[in-house]
Amino acid sequence: MASIPESWSHMADTNAVVRFIDVNLRGAGQVMFQNNPVTGLLFIVGIAWGAYAANMPPVAIGAVVGLLVATLTAYALHVDPATLRIGLFGYNGILVGAALPTFLAVDPLLWLYIVIGSAVSTVAFLAVANVFKTWGVAALTFPFVLVTWFLVLAAYAFNGVPIASMGPPAIPQEIAATAAVIPTDAQFWLDSFLNGPAQVFLIGNGVTGVIFLIALAVSSVWAALFAMLGAAVAVLIAVLFGADTATIQAGLFGFSPVLTAIALGCTFYKPSWPVFLYALLGIIFTVFVQAAMDVALTPIGIPTFTAPFIFATWLFLLPKENLAPVRHDRAAHAVVGEKVVAGKSASATVVVTNSKKAK
Amino acid sequence: MASIPESWSHMADTNAVVRFIDVNLRGAGQVMFQNNPVTGLLFIVGIAWGAYAANMPPVAIGAVVGLLVATLTAYALHVDPATLRIGLFGYNGILVGAALPTFLAVDPLLWLYIVIGSAVSTVAFLAVANVFKTWGVAALTFPFVLVTWFLVLAAYAFNGVPIASMGPPAIPQEIAATAAVIPTDAQFWLDSFLNGPAQVFLIGNGVTGVIFLIALAVSSVWAALFAMLGAAVAVLIAVLFGADTATIQAGLFGFSPVLTAIALGCTFYKPSWPVFLYALLGIIFTVFVQAAMDVALTPIGIPTFTAPFIFATWLFLLPKENLAPVRHDRAAHAVVGEKVVAGKSASATVVVTNSKKAK
Amino acid sequence: MASIPESWSHMADTNAVVRFIDVNLRGAGQVMFQNNPVTGLLFIVGIAWGAYAANMPPVAIGAVVGLLVATLTAYALHVDPATLRIGLFGYNGILVGAALPTFLAVDPLLWLYIVIGSAVSTVAFLAVANVFKTWGVAALTFPFVLVTWFLVLAAYAFNGVPIASMGPPAIPQEIAATAAVIPTDAQFWLDSFLNGPAQVFLIGNGVTGVIFLIALAVSSVWAALFAMLGAAVAVLIAVLFGADTATIQAGLFGFSPVLTAIALGCTFYKPSWPVFLYALLGIIFTVFVQAAMDVALTPIGIPTFTAPFIFATWLFLLPKENLAPVRHDRAAHAVVGEKVVAGKSASATVVVTNSKKAK
Repeated sequence: MASIPESWSHMADTNAVVRFIDVNLRGAGQVMFQNNPVTGLLFIVGIAWGAYAANMPPVAIGAVVGLLVATLTAYALHVDPATLRIGLFGYNGILVGAALPTFLAVDPLLWLYIVIGSAVSTVAFLAVANVFKTWGVAALTFPFVLVTWFLVLAAYAFNGVPIASMGPPAIPQEIAATAAVIPTDAQFWLDSFLNGPAQVFLIGNGVTGVIFLIALAVSSVWAALFAMLGAAVAVLIAVLFGADTATIQAGLFGFSPVLTAIALGCTFYKPSWPVFLYALLGIIFTVFVQAAMDVALTPIGIPTFTAPFIFATWLFLLPKENLAPVRHDRAAHAVVGEKVVAGKSASATVVVTNSKKAK
Repeated sequence: MASIPESWSHMADTNAVVRFIDVNLRGAGQVMFQNNPVTGLLFIVGIAWGAYAANMPPVAIGAVVGLLVATLTAYALHVDPATLRIGLFGYNGILVGAALPTFLAVDPLLWLYIVIGSAVSTVAFLAVANVFKTWGVAALTFPFVLVTWFLVLAAYAFNGVPIASMGPPAIPQEIAATAAVIPTDAQFWLDSFLNGPAQVFLIGNGVTGVIFLIALAVSSVWAALFAMLGAAVAVLIAVLFGADTATIQAGLFGFSPVLTAIALGCTFYKPSWPVFLYALLGIIFTVFVQAAMDVALTPIGIPTFTAPFIFATWLFLLPKENLAPVRHDRAAHAVVGEKVVAGKSASATVVVTNSKKAK
Repeated sequence: MASIPESWSHMADTNAVVRFIDVNLRGAGQVMFQNNPVTGLLFIVGIAWGAYAANMPPVAIGAVVGLLVATLTAYALHVDPATLRIGLFGYNGILVGAALPTFLAVDPLLWLYIVIGSAVSTVAFLAVANVFKTWGVAALTFPFVLVTWFLVLAAYAFNGVPIASMGPPAIPQEIAATAAVIPTDAQFWLDSFLNGPAQVFLIGNGVTGVIFLIALAVSSVWAALFAMLGAAVAVLIAVLFGADTATIQAGLFGFSPVLTAIALGCTFYKPSWPVFLYALLGIIFTVFVQAAMDVALTPIGIPTFTAPFIFATWLFLLPKENLAPVRHDRAAHAVVGEKVVAGKSASATVVVTNSKKAK
């Protein structure tokens, strides 16, 4: 068994086709910060399962198309090879490709939309990474969110790409002030917990959630544990504050906290007790940001995507250099560009090497 | 009388409890850029007076809780001691704690909300200060606004923290085109003028306004004068352009211009005639931004808080390095980190010392 | 004929009044990145023609007032002389002055509004340029958009500056799902194509469009060609995706792509086949951003202005330093501040020289 990864790794180094597949699988894995082709493969399996179960195969096909187009665009733009090698040019494209058929009707023009959106996601990754490396912080999934927000908003103005399941735009209403009854059935808690990780790829399916947690554990047990922590805390906080139970059960309060937990708990900071408490505060705040953005986007009828994770995580990453407990753990390695080591467990911290930054 | 500040200062240097109190009082003072414990104490007195008069004691209690939690969070995060010492980790927390009970119902979960929000305000201060020090500009009260916007927006989706006095979300309407009658009663002008400074802490009370002006004068006569200038210009411009008179009288066009006036007139630039004219333009523009944001936030039903001050002041501070008249006045001292001198009149320009900035 | 530019250039160097006129004309030209007084003069002629034809002379008068006030404010602020000389302090002011009378009623206070807004546009240019030079990217027309958004939003709250033709704010609706019939009459295609360049200055007039294209060609044939490419691609994409035909015919899908095309195709990158394909992707994406922002701004009832161009172009400029094909073309010259050569074909890349940037 140990020889399979080794021989795959060897083949990827010597054969251009295998390397291209490897780059794409790592791209899928980087959605949850894992530079690991097996994790990426299992993510795609989980998406396929969920799309099949929901009778929405275009979601899985779109995801693969988006991944391939984003990666090919990166090749065409002659981007930094080390950054490309670890999959950082694929993770936004796969999300663009999964999101568009989830919310828009499957129409000939939708596929053109996916191709253009995925290609632009690669440009957007370069742009966002360039801005945020100023403060040693990663682009996260903001390129995906930015590009996809524009595309789904534009769909309201385009006959050619009709809305399937989004909106309609409306004035936000305060949630009914009925007593928040804490649900007691196990199904509610199980669904809420497992749909959290699954919704990272916009899938509402518990089996997909399990596959995603296994996929994480293959690459990093810490990542799987923090994902579970994020999912659990999100459900508890959303229930405690009396959020809508159907929304909780669909996993829609959980996907952003899952990502925040992996990012803060074990990707950009090294696991420790202070980091655990800091990440916990970040996870809780992500739940508030999720609720807030659900309200704020109601008048324009678009989903938040992973924006709550992005905004909360940036807020908790930007102080990095000034946090004493962290300084002693990781600051020595925090210089952008240092960890670009293809094939090793380099994380998405590394955005773009930039040996020639003007000035 | 002169010996009281001296002996307080001595006690703060030698006794940890006194120092902690001193740090918190300076934190209150920094809301209007004053690194002065007496100013901070008078600000808290003014809040307490206004809260008592409006029969809303939770506003004053929340303010103190927010201040303490934000400061304690800073200690827990081992932040830069010099920055902590001058109160820069308290001024956002006190505003979070005053704002939440003003707009949300007083409920058990509200207090948890205040504690989490104040703790996150300290993280947000580190984040925002880290970003803006790139251009030598202070975080201002943006950490407060950002965190509190998320919390009050989320309240629309949470049963556990009902809305008390905010919104409801609605489509903005153009103000009725009736002739704008300039009010002639003295009460209108007095209220409008004094409620401006008072509303910096979300208090609509003329006595509080007077207390705040005295509090400023204790620390800096220039600050008190510019606060009055900001309040007066705001009322005149709002009346001239025919804004809603009830809103003007409540001080809701004045609090942001008051802050802009202190910031531009005598905090980040040194008082002079060119600076006076530049600040005047900034004050007038702040009134326009206030009106604009009142409209823009109507569909999501949340207050602007001090965002108009922040956006206008950032706009007028960012050119700092390229303005010739200013260059000769202050540019020599404008390097971030230089003015961190605890116990002296260092201002909020100084955000976070960062002797180890990566790259 | 060749001697007229030369003698004008000589007069501008020696006579302060001629130089002031020259600076203002270059300011008009910089709206489409042309540091050329003849281009600027023709732009003003095109505006005047369109304003006269629409019986809206205040649009042309406002444009000239805004240009003069913005430039005079720059003199008053003692900005960098080389940057001032090439017109970079005028292009936002002329747009503020053209936009306000287009959307607001002509009222005594409107003129005060234009004067204040144009003056602030100069401050905003310094601010935005200062931020974006961090990544070697230009301010584009964002200072105009930012200031004018605040002013037109505020108009909803001010009796003194009534709305003329904007909004009303409303919940966005999905475009009717009737089959998108591709228009076949030549008038539709001609209007759609020529109104694109014209709407850069908010003019809906085909003759103005022709004048603007000639004005570009006087300075740069590439600029005129890319402007036509942007206008043509915008119409085709908007028709293909089934956007509202009246909006297309009015040129409202074209003005941002025209600017994106000039910016990406021949201003900030050097024309080549890879750059052509990259610019083409940027132009198409600008059409999507235009549709998206039209929807997103519906609840607050304000126009997008040139924001779709700005956001798309920033996205495609920020990767500049990391793009291999571009690196070989232009990176050697990409250092901000290098190209400030008054009277030469320096472009708007150059934002503000900053020989004394504090760290």
